[in-house]
Amino acid sequence: MKKLRVLLTREEIVPDRLPGATAVVLDVFMATTTLLTILQNGARGVYPVASLEEADEVAAKLDDEEVLRGGEQDAARIEGYDHGPFPGEYAPEVVGGKDVIFVTTNGTRAIADAAPAERVLLGSLRNAPAVARYLEGLETDSIYLVCAGSAGRFTVEDFLGAAVILSYMNVEGWRLNDGARLALDFADRHKDDVSGVLEQNRAGRWFVENDRMEVFDFVADVGASDLVPEVVDGKLRPAGG
Amino acid sequence: MKKLRVLLTREEIVPDRLPGATAVVLDVFMATTTLLTILQNGARGVYPVASLEEADEVAAKLDDEEVLRGGEQDAARIEGYDHGPFPGEYAPEVVGGKDVIFVTTNGTRAIADAAPAERVLLGSLRNAPAVARYLEGLETDSIYLVCAGSAGRFTVEDFLGAAVILSYMNVEGWRLNDGARLALDFADRHKDDVSGVLEQNRAGRWFVENDRMEVFDFVADVGASDLVPEVVDGKLRPAGG
Repeated sequence: MKKLRVLLTREEIVPDRLPGATAVVLDVFMATTTLLTILQNGARGVYPVASLEEADEVAAKLDDEEVLRGGEQDAARIEGYDHGPFPGEYAPEVVGGKDVIFVTTNGTRAIADAAPAERVLLGSLRNAPAVARYLEGLETDSIYLVCAGSAGRFTVEDFLGAAVILSYMNVEGWRLNDGARLALDFADRHKDDVSGVLEQNRAGRWFVENDRMEVFDFVADVGASDLVPEVVDGKLRPAGG
Repeated sequence: MKKLRVLLTREEIVPDRLPGATAVVLDVFMATTTLLTILQNGARGVYPVASLEEADEVAAKLDDEEVLRGGEQDAARIEGYDHGPFPGEYAPEVVGGKDVIFVTTNGTRAIADAAPAERVLLGSLRNAPAVARYLEGLETDSIYLVCAGSAGRFTVEDFLGAAVILSYMNVEGWRLNDGARLALDFADRHKDDVSGVLEQNRAGRWFVENDRMEVFDFVADVGASDLVPEVVDGKLRPAGG
């Protein structure tokens, strides 16, 4: 039977079980939302990396003139980097024609953790319906929706992203793990109040309390993007492209 | 502000943060349910241990004649052990006056992981209301409800146990983490259909499909016990006793 699983933190990944599977990595605040945006806004190359060291290694192979570095470590900006973790920092006029190397504390590490999978996709609220459609069109009998979480802990926003993706799929014929079943139950109750869920939880509340509603609203915009980024050889490209 | 957190797997524990806190460990199928039962049924000493080696160490200090060993490893019975993981194996006439050493794959390891906490309690569906009352009577500003999970993965039954405990508490004045908020939301929807939730998920389904309904019903009997086991120096005693 085909298996569809939601992992509530990246720590739930068992690398040995990933070969042959399709993994969708979700770090809604912010890595996968921002990476989607960078790809969508016309960067030439987008490179999610797991560490500052790996960022240096990737940079060494690229043309210095055209390289931008961005992300965060422990929610702080990175010294010497061009940009932070927020999607608004990567407008088309900023990233067009550039190579962007992007590193974050949780999200890009989760992408690295998922690397043993046959196929690694990036999910977020913005592209949730598109991810669901793409998954339904795939020939695969093993799907993992991987919530990045934060420092090893569950965060509701990634789970909400997984829940919304599931809510757009027909899961009949799939065996669901407990996490997937919980996600469907959660979606059933909350999928029409995504902003409400985000506001009440830790990361989302921060954006509300610090008056960063433009970021919050961007993140929460379910279905705003039809793009499904896939990680191929450490670089993003549109899935199925 | 006082903090109340639900950890969705034992892997979410950060040992450095536990000192001074009260931790409630939940492994509903079966370790904490069975340990509660062993204590309730009159064992002289109940020793949850993290490994077979530790079981040997503890046994070496006890009177051989009065020692029983029980538990499971990877869901299989343990060679040379007297009993398995199920509560029905520990009737009063079996455990009365005995020392019971108990080891399981997930639950007793979660208890060991929680050891840095000031206070370690055992929770289950059966004693959920009693645990809630006990927590409300404590002078503490830091509570962790630790779902054991299974092999690093989320399992809904432990989460349901945490949710039911929370549903009996007045959480006003507590700062909740995302896991706790999700648990309250889940309780709000499902606390009156505990058996229904268990049946639909992996572990619970096993008992239904294998006609072990007496175990299933025992586990699901919310409020059947008023006992709250506390782990003190590796041994169980009634909390507050």
